Amino acid sequence: MKNRNKPDLWVREIHKDVAGLSFKVEKTLFSGQSRYQHIDIVQTAGHGRMLLNDGIVMLAERDEFIYHEMIAHVPLFVHPAPEQILVIGGGDGGTVREVLRHPGVQRVVMVEIDELVVNACRDHIPSVSCAMDDPRMELLIADGVGFIAETDERFDVIIIDSTDPVGPAQPLFDKDFYKNAAARLAPDGILIAQAESPFYDLDLQLPMLRNLRPFFPKLHLYLFTCLTYPGGLWSFAFASNGLCPIADFDPEKVRRCGFSPRYYNPAVHRSAFALPTFAADNLAEVLDPVEAPHTG
Amino acid sequence: MKNRNKPDLWVREIHKDVAGLSFKVEKTLFSGQSRYQHIDIVQTAGHGRMLLNDGIVMLAERDEFIYHEMIAHVPLFVHPAPEQILVIGGGDGGTVREVLRHPGVQRVVMVEIDELVVNACRDHIPSVSCAMDDPRMELLIADGVGFIAETDERFDVIIIDSTDPVGPAQPLFDKDFYKNAAARLAPDGILIAQAESPFYDLDLQLPMLRNLRPFFPKLHLYLFTCLTYPGGLWSFAFASNGLCPIADFDPEKVRRCGFSPRYYNPAVHRSAFALPTFAADNLAEVLDPVEAPHTG
Repeated sequence: MKNRNKPDLWVREIHKDVAGLSFKVEKTLFSGQSRYQHIDIVQTAGHGRMLLNDGIVMLAERDEFIYHEMIAHVPLFVHPAPEQILVIGGGDGGTVREVLRHPGVQRVVMVEIDELVVNACRDHIPSVSCAMDDPRMELLIADGVGFIAETDERFDVIIIDSTDPVGPAQPLFDKDFYKNAAARLAPDGILIAQAESPFYDLDLQLPMLRNLRPFFPKLHLYLFTCLTYPGGLWSFAFASNGLCPIADFDPEKVRRCGFSPRYYNPAVHRSAFALPTFAADNLAEVLDPVEAPHTG
Repeated sequence: MKNRNKPDLWVREIHKDVAGLSFKVEKTLFSGQSRYQHIDIVQTAGHGRMLLNDGIVMLAERDEFIYHEMIAHVPLFVHPAPEQILVIGGGDGGTVREVLRHPGVQRVVMVEIDELVVNACRDHIPSVSCAMDDPRMELLIADGVGFIAETDERFDVIIIDSTDPVGPAQPLFDKDFYKNAAARLAPDGILIAQAESPFYDLDLQLPMLRNLRPFFPKLHLYLFTCLTYPGGLWSFAFASNGLCPIADFDPEKVRRCGFSPRYYNPAVHRSAFALPTFAADNLAEVLDPVEAPHTG
């Protein structure tokens, strides 16, 4: 008779009142309210453990490797010698897990506003948060906007691993923030930022890229897929002081890196910058054309 | 008081009992039962008109251009002179709409088993079915499996625009069908087939590709995105008598073609064949490596 009355539990996220994604849930592992947001971690039936902030799916164990590999390895394999890394947000730990696979990285500063995200993921999603105790990690529970305005450090790569531009992450999409971030980049520096859906979020994507544009000589968008985000196709902005994501990318570095990403590889790196015509047309005013590769 | 009691209608598709997609619906435009399946066409709130077979989303006006451009333009721009085209399935008309944009195409034979799909789409989704009356079109309402076993014609490109391998389309994924299809290809021939999700459907994808493998010197998989299919990432198989989808692709042909696809472009063409590592590893036993491009 076991399970006879087990409820049919689904978590459901509705996007812009027209599209919904739902995932079957076995049980809730954590539920808590921070100063900033409501945080839930659930065990799903087909997607491993899942983190939700204010009911919006942030990540699922089944495919989080894609988001985290693409946000980390694209800039770290383009930069000639990434040593000092700043991550704004990303309290679940997936981004720093991938950053810290690069043996040349000497120090990662993570500035996460919400300590509850860090603690809940440490307790309930260790497959994602597993690198948070790496000796190269420096975790600050603080507002990224304030940090970037006040620090006088410079970083080789800055990764903005934020939620959507509503709620606590909203100022991370503002012009002032990007201006200050650009000033904190070392000469070869690269900034990566979560940049929403090319299908559903042009209303967010275009203003965000317009805000970035004035402070970076190079600005590109690259794509990856995600099982748990509406539409399945998602993007990151690649902004740099001069490095080109294709022309300055040497696939040999990936072949020699000593670890094995599950999504990312040299062909995926280059392909991610090939935008569908409709997206390229929508964003032509703010993006640079992608340069041809130098090497095979 | 208008609309006060308008119901909150959503169509919902559940995949493997773990993931669901839902779309807000304004009204049902058509609902009918054929010998093979139940067919519905609905007006959605955010995705235009939508076709569902047995409750499974087949296409939506908002993004159907992606599926149809990618199934048609990839083979038609690789083949040096595609003139005689066979489409199995595809009764909605989207695939032939894209095929017929190529002025060199002389004749398209469509073999669709279910006349109700053709008629319902003609009546209710004219943006998709608009090329079905092209004088180069020859529509046969018949079983594609029987047609391919009996015809003695040869085609430059055969496109298998099928539903999933359950229900009426199941025999379109069998070894005998692929063997007969290979025999109906002209010497430079290319066969394209809908090949399911690299995330969710390895149990369908691997047997399908194993069934194709013995009959084609070249076998590749390529990717595209779809708002209305589970996971958002989907695939087509590219099987040929020798033509390589990258090495034999000349981007100049696209630039000179005289029409403007909304998703497809030369960079997208090449990028579509870059498989994520997990997918490439899963399918390494059946796929050929992609050759480098000859031209810029």
